[in-house]
Amino acid sequence: MPFTPTEYLPYDFANRRHIGPSPSEMEEMFKVIGVESLDQLIEETVPQAIRQAEPLDFGKPMSERKLLNHMRQVAAKNKVLTSLIGQGYYGTVTPPVIQRNVLENPAWYTAYTPYQPEISQGRLEALLNFQTMVADLTGLEIANASLLDEATACAEAMVMAQRVAKSKTTGFFVDESCHPQSIAVMQTRAAPLGIDVIVGSPDDLDPEAVFAGIFQYPGTHGELRDFTPEIEALHETKAIGIVAADLMALTLLKEPGAMGADIAVGNTQRFGVPMGFGGPHAAYFACKDAYKRNMPGRIVGVSVDSHGTKAYRLSLQTREQHIRREKATSNVCTAQALLAVMASFYGVFHGPEGLKAIAQRIHRKTVRLAKGLEEAGFEVVPKAFFDTITVEVGPLQRAVLKSAVDEGINLRPVGTTKVGISLDEATRRPVIERVWRAFGIERKDDDLTPEYRVPDALHRQSGFMDHPVFHMNRAETEMMRYMRRLSDRDLALDRAMIPLGSCTMKLNSAAEMMPVSWREFSLIHPFAPADQWQGYRELIDDLCDKLCTITGYDAMSMQPNSGAQGEYAGLLTIMAYHRANGDTARKTCLIPVNAHGTNPASAHMCGMDVVVVKCTERGDIDLEDFRAKAEAAGETLAACMITYPSTHGVFEETVREVCDITHQFGGQVYLDGANLNAMVGLSKPGEIGSDVSHLNLHKTFCIPHGGGGPGMGPIGVKAHLAPHLPGHPATGGEEGPVSAAPYGSPSILPISWAYILMMGGAGLTQATKVAILNANYIAKRLEGAYDVLFSGDKGHVAHECILDTRPFAEAGVTVDDIAKRLMDCGFHAPTMSWPVAGTLMVEPTESETKAELDRFCDAMLGIREEIAKVEKGDWPQDNNPLKHAPHTMQDMVKDDWDRPYSRQEACFPAGSFKVDKYWAPVGRVDNVYGDRHLVCTCPPLEDYMDAAE
Amino acid sequence: MPFTPTEYLPYDFANRRHIGPSPSEMEEMFKVIGVESLDQLIEETVPQAIRQAEPLDFGKPMSERKLLNHMRQVAAKNKVLTSLIGQGYYGTVTPPVIQRNVLENPAWYTAYTPYQPEISQGRLEALLNFQTMVADLTGLEIANASLLDEATACAEAMVMAQRVAKSKTTGFFVDESCHPQSIAVMQTRAAPLGIDVIVGSPDDLDPEAVFAGIFQYPGTHGELRDFTPEIEALHETKAIGIVAADLMALTLLKEPGAMGADIAVGNTQRFGVPMGFGGPHAAYFACKDAYKRNMPGRIVGVSVDSHGTKAYRLSLQTREQHIRREKATSNVCTAQALLAVMASFYGVFHGPEGLKAIAQRIHRKTVRLAKGLEEAGFEVVPKAFFDTITVEVGPLQRAVLKSAVDEGINLRPVGTTKVGISLDEATRRPVIERVWRAFGIERKDDDLTPEYRVPDALHRQSGFMDHPVFHMNRAETEMMRYMRRLSDRDLALDRAMIPLGSCTMKLNSAAEMMPVSWREFSLIHPFAPADQWQGYRELIDDLCDKLCTITGYDAMSMQPNSGAQGEYAGLLTIMAYHRANGDTARKTCLIPVNAHGTNPASAHMCGMDVVVVKCTERGDIDLEDFRAKAEAAGETLAACMITYPSTHGVFEETVREVCDITHQFGGQVYLDGANLNAMVGLSKPGEIGSDVSHLNLHKTFCIPHGGGGPGMGPIGVKAHLAPHLPGHPATGGEEGPVSAAPYGSPSILPISWAYILMMGGAGLTQATKVAILNANYIAKRLEGAYDVLFSGDKGHVAHECILDTRPFAEAGVTVDDIAKRLMDCGFHAPTMSWPVAGTLMVEPTESETKAELDRFCDAMLGIREEIAKVEKGDWPQDNNPLKHAPHTMQDMVKDDWDRPYSRQEACFPAGSFKVDKYWAPVGRVDNVYGDRHLVCTCPPLEDYMDAAE
Repeated sequence: MPFTPTEYLPYDFANRRHIGPSPSEMEEMFKVIGVESLDQLIEETVPQAIRQAEPLDFGKPMSERKLLNHMRQVAAKNKVLTSLIGQGYYGTVTPPVIQRNVLENPAWYTAYTPYQPEISQGRLEALLNFQTMVADLTGLEIANASLLDEATACAEAMVMAQRVAKSKTTGFFVDESCHPQSIAVMQTRAAPLGIDVIVGSPDDLDPEAVFAGIFQYPGTHGELRDFTPEIEALHETKAIGIVAADLMALTLLKEPGAMGADIAVGNTQRFGVPMGFGGPHAAYFACKDAYKRNMPGRIVGVSVDSHGTKAYRLSLQTREQHIRREKATSNVCTAQALLAVMASFYGVFHGPEGLKAIAQRIHRKTVRLAKGLEEAGFEVVPKAFFDTITVEVGPLQRAVLKSAVDEGINLRPVGTTKVGISLDEATRRPVIERVWRAFGIERKDDDLTPEYRVPDALHRQSGFMDHPVFHMNRAETEMMRYMRRLSDRDLALDRAMIPLGSCTMKLNSAAEMMPVSWREFSLIHPFAPADQWQGYRELIDDLCDKLCTITGYDAMSMQPNSGAQGEYAGLLTIMAYHRANGDTARKTCLIPVNAHGTNPASAHMCGMDVVVVKCTERGDIDLEDFRAKAEAAGETLAACMITYPSTHGVFEETVREVCDITHQFGGQVYLDGANLNAMVGLSKPGEIGSDVSHLNLHKTFCIPHGGGGPGMGPIGVKAHLAPHLPGHPATGGEEGPVSAAPYGSPSILPISWAYILMMGGAGLTQATKVAILNANYIAKRLEGAYDVLFSGDKGHVAHECILDTRPFAEAGVTVDDIAKRLMDCGFHAPTMSWPVAGTLMVEPTESETKAELDRFCDAMLGIREEIAKVEKGDWPQDNNPLKHAPHTMQDMVKDDWDRPYSRQEACFPAGSFKVDKYWAPVGRVDNVYGDRHLVCTCPPLEDYMDAAE
Repeated sequence: MPFTPTEYLPYDFANRRHIGPSPSEMEEMFKVIGVESLDQLIEETVPQAIRQAEPLDFGKPMSERKLLNHMRQVAAKNKVLTSLIGQGYYGTVTPPVIQRNVLENPAWYTAYTPYQPEISQGRLEALLNFQTMVADLTGLEIANASLLDEATACAEAMVMAQRVAKSKTTGFFVDESCHPQSIAVMQTRAAPLGIDVIVGSPDDLDPEAVFAGIFQYPGTHGELRDFTPEIEALHETKAIGIVAADLMALTLLKEPGAMGADIAVGNTQRFGVPMGFGGPHAAYFACKDAYKRNMPGRIVGVSVDSHGTKAYRLSLQTREQHIRREKATSNVCTAQALLAVMASFYGVFHGPEGLKAIAQRIHRKTVRLAKGLEEAGFEVVPKAFFDTITVEVGPLQRAVLKSAVDEGINLRPVGTTKVGISLDEATRRPVIERVWRAFGIERKDDDLTPEYRVPDALHRQSGFMDHPVFHMNRAETEMMRYMRRLSDRDLALDRAMIPLGSCTMKLNSAAEMMPVSWREFSLIHPFAPADQWQGYRELIDDLCDKLCTITGYDAMSMQPNSGAQGEYAGLLTIMAYHRANGDTARKTCLIPVNAHGTNPASAHMCGMDVVVVKCTERGDIDLEDFRAKAEAAGETLAACMITYPSTHGVFEETVREVCDITHQFGGQVYLDGANLNAMVGLSKPGEIGSDVSHLNLHKTFCIPHGGGGPGMGPIGVKAHLAPHLPGHPATGGEEGPVSAAPYGSPSILPISWAYILMMGGAGLTQATKVAILNANYIAKRLEGAYDVLFSGDKGHVAHECILDTRPFAEAGVTVDDIAKRLMDCGFHAPTMSWPVAGTLMVEPTESETKAELDRFCDAMLGIREEIAKVEKGDWPQDNNPLKHAPHTMQDMVKDDWDRPYSRQEACFPAGSFKVDKYWAPVGRVDNVYGDRHLVCTCPPLEDYMDAAE
């Protein structure tokens, strides 16, 4: 390798780091697949008819260093002031040990949703702690983990109340003290469902007129009120009482459960999760035990494993689209797992005494702040409060707000003559003095005797968080080790491929993740003055532009903070468009039978009537049936929802025709963006006939899955739909909002932006091609051992492939057995039984190297050989490595080994690492037991002690 | 837990997070120890005679948040310019995947030096990669991992050359083109050893007059020269040729090995390790195979384990103080392991092609820069260069330097009429244009054809880094997983206590670590103008002040970048003091027999004669012997070196007397600060008679051990010694420097400062007390099972306790067996056989919780029971869980289990975690085999493949 002056060696760019197979590895893969080049594979796979004309071009891709410098400059355009605006968003102190070891640790942030409980025990425990904390603090029996934001949680509560209430009116009472964004989101959600939202004072509540009522506690302007009488009145008419409560306040205040509330909702942002310009953070939802089977979202429960040992799992898979497909009224899917985990550790870190001490300090400071104002002659309301007060300033509102900004502080304008102030954990003496100064008061915060402004009747009487996990020693050493132990129990992308079809578990690179921790992004209040978030403005605008270019759409909304939210928002936009055209009869939505489960749920949420369209045996949309149903719908056709490439993992040649038919009958095309990772740079939804799509930034654009969230589901639309995109009380717009914050979860947008900037147009396109290459490589290597269910004309699959496991049924081997056996090999299972029962859908993404693909294929081929042994009768159907998978350490050290296979065969199957073996911490989890014996809070001490040792 | 208005709950402060046992746990511990209170324990343990009068008081301790805000303000006082100063420090790009997953990952930074190879295989592999990379790039056969900085590496090379050279002259030639700080450090080191340093041009080299010569390559001002003729000339007189070479340049240039060099030294800072105002980073040392047994520092080698599997270990424990105690000429101890690991991953990340591409780009940019200057009429030297040029500017030097600063760029003043410029990996087009502008040239960097300025004869002809590890796929996914796999093989503080006596493995908190990553600290060049590092100035000054208050000294030097360097610097200071007083005969240094091994080595390095003082049976200094030897030394007495509390872990009552005797005979007292964690807040070395101490900031003050470095060993002195502290060419002073940079490794100083600010005086004192409590708790719990060797009058130990394992010799159980068995329990062993052979020295530190102490005690008691079984003959002496420890997964899954104990007993001994079990990746490593079959670079492909799977 001598140095020759004329030759420059190429430098590694970020996109090469993102893409798994090296150029030489790709050459080997072409041979296996039987193509000459990547371009040939793509030619043979992606129909010419849908290819985009021009290649993507975003200029020169940025190196990691350049990206970080650029990002730093953009971040500097956000001005970090102390925001005391409140309204559901508060300053908080993220304990550094949590920031470093959870938020910034790939073992946590690259994990998938814990559907495979055996390899998810760590985050399931953290989420169970979350549920326990929420149930305890709200005084209700059961809580989920978790929802997207407080406003959507309110809307979910409304919808659930409608379903469970015995009162069959259409009215829904909303306390006027609810946060404005919550009211707006509930109104958006209510309209298509025929719910009449009645906003008013609790004093004017008419229980006869409503099926439920929701009350904010404390109120958005700080009001404290005991809602016991209102809830009792609601109960008398068989209506439901809901309280939207601040968890921090509940450490001091009478809890919703003690007021008789049926449901409590809220968010956990101020439990150590920075405001992040609105998100992400985890909302909570708690309710009475009686309603648990109607609760939206994910619920962690306790079950037992095959050894009878305690084991966690997701209980009550109530995601409505699973069980009520066409009738579902909730499409909740993405939770905010990573953020719930952070809030949960915040609770563990501080414990009940620590939380109470924090709340007391917040309250004490607020009292001092109020006294200072009062003594200076200001009128402060309410008289009883926790952390929020409102001050009458008459015509000087603007002057006071500006004066506060000059002091580095954001206050909240209330009406036109008042100013709101919410203190938080981070408020210290100088901040109070600066607030006073904004009101023209010069005094030191040192001579005010604290007094309490919480009414005696609202003092909390009950204890909470008695479980030992909240009474750990709490030295940082112990916290750090607890987090490490939990994460070690889980298998995430930092250890192995997660080949989950339709989930696109690709690299979340370190450079992309770093800006998320920067204070310029994390400490911005979503309702801060616009001149303080010009960095976000630039980021969001440019990201929207680039996403429009990628998708062929004309406008983009960043508001939906999950994929399912995106679907909902997209369909709402279509409905608003029809409504604006006077087409109020257009309510029919055509959905193919193999659509994502959220599709019909979202359609229903928008007041649409779902008509299911058949598929052909090849998995394509049955064009005849489609045409027939579109024609039948005629003037009532609102939309169709299609997925492209199809959920069966093929590029259907007929997609343009489907779009044409829809348009022909006046409908709009919704193209589900879940599979966009197979299109970027090759094909644009907006160019092949679609009118709207949501994009999963947590799939295609590198936002990590975080163990089940965060996510982002922005929607792109063609120009005619742009006026009907979601609006927001804070930023305006014709339509109502779908999320609490105007831009969803903005603090994770730097990740997607960084990805696009570092990849450039060519890099993004190459990523798409390699994603297709990787899937075809797996399909080819497994040929003969497994049937690949669907493929295109030339025998290729798109970016994922479906493996048929039904032929093994005769040998008693189920898709579950294979999934669990893959854990022994050190893999997360592919997507199971979707879109076809008894199959595995494999999506490797472009980020996996050939070595890892080979390790996976070796594992699958080894499993096939094991199946063959069962088929041949060498191993009994009920006693073989597949049935006993996953194998644990405890299995291995048993003295009596009475199985027909060896310990070696059990523990070190093909593909598993010898030295770096991953061990499932529990054996196969018993689902039936878990649902029969539902326990969704931390089990008692004895169990806990067993688990610790 | 109702809310009562009158009662405020206490808030958790940082010091409570740092200290392990909770208040209630401490109460339980008092009962076990048999004291009423912590104060009683301290009263009974720490003699009144040595107690400090006033409690430590640094004002109110800071919360984590306040600390980080404060640190941010101080950091902002450092101005980050683009430094093109060179002189051994260069801009570099730390790959984010390395920053996040190594530098910011406690699994890497909290690890200890890999003396226990079975639980250190991950970092040993990373360090072996480092050695392989260095050996390949330098073209020499063997390299170590690693040294403190380039200047001390040069000095080590000089001293080693003196030892191995057949030429017995006293002259040592130093190329005048060596970096000034390297020359100065070699001069400091040479003087006490009677070496005559001859600085001059290689043209004037007189091989007869020297035992060795060192040449800088490229020279400090950019010169490229083939030193083959000089080295040949040296070899003719049996002298040694040393090249100090820049590793980045070596990817393009003829390597030292090809010039015939015997030794090559240099640093690896520009391999992804930020400049950090001078450190830390890893220096390298490579030499011919013939000299390997004389090489200083740590060397990783390949051996086999008890199964015959390849396993890494530290080979050739050549640390001289171990084997040549009183004659040692090197005290190298702390390496820069964490930084060597980073540089090693940088090499793996880029591979040889990537490194070469980076070097080519640096060169090409330098050529363009030079052409631009030349075309504008400037005289640029040298004509042949790699990355550094010097420009003649006559009387305008200051003007150009200032003009450059205005452009945001630091250049190097050379002489009084020249300006030096060194480009680096991070240099981009705008930087070149800004440099031109500083010279008054307005042009774009776009029209210059690159040409090469490396002479043909100096083109590198050989390949390098052919090993597969440097040809990994290099996708970030693979890099991330490789780093995770390696770290998972190791046991660090993030999983378990590391109860190493004398090493003080305490918490390194997340908040303390965060500022280390900030660019305001990491991107400062050590020779940048002083107004650009006022943040560092403030930090260093305040840290020195506080350390003076803590130790009772009057002045502090931050220059020594390891504990051993501190000893050396402290003794040099003493010798300079005597010299200044005309006491040139004072050369005797009294050192007790149980002193740290580095003590005699350091004394010898300073030209002292070591006289060993006896100890009593109780482990105290034999006062009679001490007095007798001091008296015998009389006028020649230079110093005594003592450790307090003693290396036996007791507070000797006689320490003041020892100091008095030393002073009586005109000597100075050096008090080794290794055990300062038992004194802070209770006793001050400077008040009990000591004149100088080094402080291990990586022990007492929370800098993480990083798997064997970084460290910091500042020295504190009484006022009379202050004028004789180390100076530095860059910052002045009477004496010569001991380290390359004026303040050692400043970028890790925020850690110690943060610790002190967050703990406050009372917190620090409490930490000391609890460290003593924890040690006494262990001693008490193990009473009966193990003999605790030394204790004070009241039966208490200080902050560590020594457990006697010699009684088990009869049963064939060695201290090694116990150490390895502890790995099965999930622990790092305590310090073995020091200061007494056949013992274990346990130091839990204050950061361990009672639960973890109990887990350790359970493990030790379980082991004692196992020993009893061997003693009783239940298990054979050569076939029991102790002898076979550590047990691996491979042991467990063997079909044939023929041992007299069960798999359960083997794998899950007392104290081990059931679910979160740590598995040693290899069985017991064969030391003898490793030293006999010395392999210190990565083993060949076949072995590598075995290991990977």
